[in-house]
Amino acid sequence: MTDLARATSILTIDVEAIVANWRLMAKGVAPAEAGAVVKADCYGLGMGHIAPALYAAGCRTFFVANVDEGLALRKILADGMIYVLSGPPPGSEPDFAAHGLSPVLNSLSQIAGWSAFARASRAAPAAAIHIDTGMSRLGLDEAELDRLAAHPEVLAGVRPVLVMSHLACADEGESPKNAEQLGTFRRLAARLPAMPMSLAASFGAFLGRNYHFDLVRPGVALYGVNPTPGRPSPMAQVVRLQGKILQVRDVDRPMTVGYGATHRVTRRGRIATVAIGYADGWFRSLGGRGFGLIEGIKVPVVGRISMDLTTFDVTEVPPTVVHAGAMMELIGPSHSVEDVADEAGTISYEILTALGRRHHRRWIGVPAEGKHA
Amino acid sequence: MTDLARATSILTIDVEAIVANWRLMAKGVAPAEAGAVVKADCYGLGMGHIAPALYAAGCRTFFVANVDEGLALRKILADGMIYVLSGPPPGSEPDFAAHGLSPVLNSLSQIAGWSAFARASRAAPAAAIHIDTGMSRLGLDEAELDRLAAHPEVLAGVRPVLVMSHLACADEGESPKNAEQLGTFRRLAARLPAMPMSLAASFGAFLGRNYHFDLVRPGVALYGVNPTPGRPSPMAQVVRLQGKILQVRDVDRPMTVGYGATHRVTRRGRIATVAIGYADGWFRSLGGRGFGLIEGIKVPVVGRISMDLTTFDVTEVPPTVVHAGAMMELIGPSHSVEDVADEAGTISYEILTALGRRHHRRWIGVPAEGKHA
Repeated sequence: MTDLARATSILTIDVEAIVANWRLMAKGVAPAEAGAVVKADCYGLGMGHIAPALYAAGCRTFFVANVDEGLALRKILADGMIYVLSGPPPGSEPDFAAHGLSPVLNSLSQIAGWSAFARASRAAPAAAIHIDTGMSRLGLDEAELDRLAAHPEVLAGVRPVLVMSHLACADEGESPKNAEQLGTFRRLAARLPAMPMSLAASFGAFLGRNYHFDLVRPGVALYGVNPTPGRPSPMAQVVRLQGKILQVRDVDRPMTVGYGATHRVTRRGRIATVAIGYADGWFRSLGGRGFGLIEGIKVPVVGRISMDLTTFDVTEVPPTVVHAGAMMELIGPSHSVEDVADEAGTISYEILTALGRRHHRRWIGVPAEGKHA
Repeated sequence: MTDLARATSILTIDVEAIVANWRLMAKGVAPAEAGAVVKADCYGLGMGHIAPALYAAGCRTFFVANVDEGLALRKILADGMIYVLSGPPPGSEPDFAAHGLSPVLNSLSQIAGWSAFARASRAAPAAAIHIDTGMSRLGLDEAELDRLAAHPEVLAGVRPVLVMSHLACADEGESPKNAEQLGTFRRLAARLPAMPMSLAASFGAFLGRNYHFDLVRPGVALYGVNPTPGRPSPMAQVVRLQGKILQVRDVDRPMTVGYGATHRVTRRGRIATVAIGYADGWFRSLGGRGFGLIEGIKVPVVGRISMDLTTFDVTEVPPTVVHAGAMMELIGPSHSVEDVADEAGTISYEILTALGRRHHRRWIGVPAEGKHA
C-alpha cells in the first residue's frame, strides 16, 4: 500500500501557488527586490521543496532564523544570498564563511565578533546590519548606532550590504507605530554608510511604496496568508489539511464525548472521529471551537482535542458521505489558515509553523526546473 | 564548530529518567504488565532513542498512533509487541502483517476487514479490541458488542489477545466517571471471549489496583509529567529546554516591546532576547504570561512571542550572568512542563508534543545496550 493511501492525515502544499504569490509580490514591489523568508522550514511547509522553486522563479535573497537553517538551505541552493537573522553565535563565524552565509548583525558585540573574524579571514561573506526601530527585540538601538558612528573602525572588515529593520504593527495598517518606525528607520540608517535598505515583510509590503526601500522580505504571504486584513486576499491558497475519518458513531442515548467529559450529547446524532490531534499541530484550543468540512458542509469540533484524534458532530451530513475512510478537510479553500487561527485564538503564523509534523506531506505544482536547482 | 555549540536552543532529554519512570511504573503495577505509549515520536522526545532503552529495561508492549509510526518503530525494534491504536486503514492490513504490527480494532468494520484479511493470509498478527466506555471517540459501543456477540463468526481468523478501553477523566481522581467507566469496561468486556484486559494509562495507574487489570499503558508519566495531580510527583524530570540569549538591551527610556507594541516599558531596565519562539513549540499563548530562569532567578516573558524569539525582563538579574551567549532555561527542574502548560493555558501533553522541532536535541543517559537493540 502506498504511503499516501495508508496516511491518516495529508498535508498538501501547493508550491505553484507559493511561486505565484512570490511573483505577485515581486511585481508589486518592483523596482524593489523581493526576497523570501524561508525560516522554520518555510513556516513548516518544507524548505527542501519550496526554496528551489522560489529560486527557479527568480528569487535570489533568502532569510533563515539560525545557522542550522542556513546550512540546510545552502545544501539545497548552491547560489543565492542567505541571511541568518539571529546572527552568528560567537565561534560560529567560520561556519558562515565556509558555507557562504551572510549574518544579520544585531548588536555591537556581533559586529565586533564578525569584524575580528573578517579581518583575520579576508574571505568573510557580506553582512546585513539590523537596526531596532521599535521591536526592542534584536538590532542596534540609537545609542549603539551613536557609538558605531563615533568608532567606525568597529566595522573594519565588515562588508555591510543591507541595513534592515522590522515593523511591530504592520498587520494594523492604521497604527501610527508604522509611520513612526518608518521615520526612525530613515533617521537611524542615515548614521551608517549608505547601503541598500529593507524594512517591510509581508504586511509591510502593502503599507505603501515608501515602505519598500530596496528589498522586501515576504514570508507568511507567500504561504497563502492574507497580508491585507479586512480586504480580499491577493494571495493564492497554499495549504490543504485533510484527516481520515476512523469511525462514525451513532449516538442514540445521552453520552459524553472526549477527555474531561466536557461535551454531552443529548439528541440523536452522529460523531465522526478523525485521525488528527494536537500532536499534529491541530491546536488543543480548537476543542469545542474548531470546524472541519466534509463535502462542503461545515461540521463543528465537539469535546476536547486528543493527542491523535478529534471528534466532529456530523449529524447534519448524509451518512453516504461521512464514513470511515473518508477524508475530512480541516484547512482548505473554504476554511483558511486564518479561520483556524481565529478559532484557536492565535495567529495564522503559529498555525502554519505547527502543521509540519506527522502528516503525510505532499507538494504539488513543483516546477521541473525547481526540483534540481 | 560543533552542532551543540552553534545551537541557539537545546532540548535535553534524559533517557535514563524515562527508563527509571518506566521501572517505577512497572514495579507499581506488578503483577500487571507495564507497556509504553511511544506515539507521536514518544510525545515529541525521540522514539529512536527512547524505545530501545525501554526495550532494554524490559518493556515488551508498545503503543503507537498510526501505521507509519508502527513501521518506524519496527525498524527500531525487531522484537516486541507493537499495537497501532487507530487500527488498520482499509487496504493496509498486509503492511501490518509484513511488519508484525498488531492492530487495535476499533469498530465492527475494522474487525470485518481484519477478519477477511486474516482468513485469507493465515499469518496475521494478534490484535486488540477497543471498547468505548465513555470517550465516544474510538472503540466498539454496546450495540456493536451485542452484534458481535450475536455473530461471533465476524471474529473468524482474528486472534484477539487484548481488550482495552480508555478513561476520560483519569486526571481527576475524584470524578465519578472513573468508577462508572471501570464498571462499564468489566460489563462490556464480559461479552467477548476471555482475554487479557487493559484500561489504565499514566493517570489511571494511580487510581488503584482495580484499574490495572493485565496491562497498564503509561505514556506521559514516562516523560516526566506528574500522574498524581495535587501530590508530589513520583516521576523523575525528563526534559530540559534552554534557549540562547542573543542580545541584552538596556532600556533607559519608555519603549514598546515586540509585535503589536503590547508591552510598554516605563522604568529603566533590561530586556533579554532569546532564540526560541512559537515555531519551536514555545506557545504564543505564553506571551506576557510565561517565565524563564537564569541562574535560578525567574524572569517573566514580556511582550508577544515571535516565531523565533522571546523577550524576557531581566532587570532583576545581575548583568554578569545575563549576557549574549548565555543560556536561558525555559523548562527544567524549577520550571516543569506542567508549569509551562499552566502558563500557556493548556496541558503538559500538548507542550511535550510541540517541543520536538528545530531545537538541537540531545539525549543523555542512553544505555549502551539500548543503542543497538
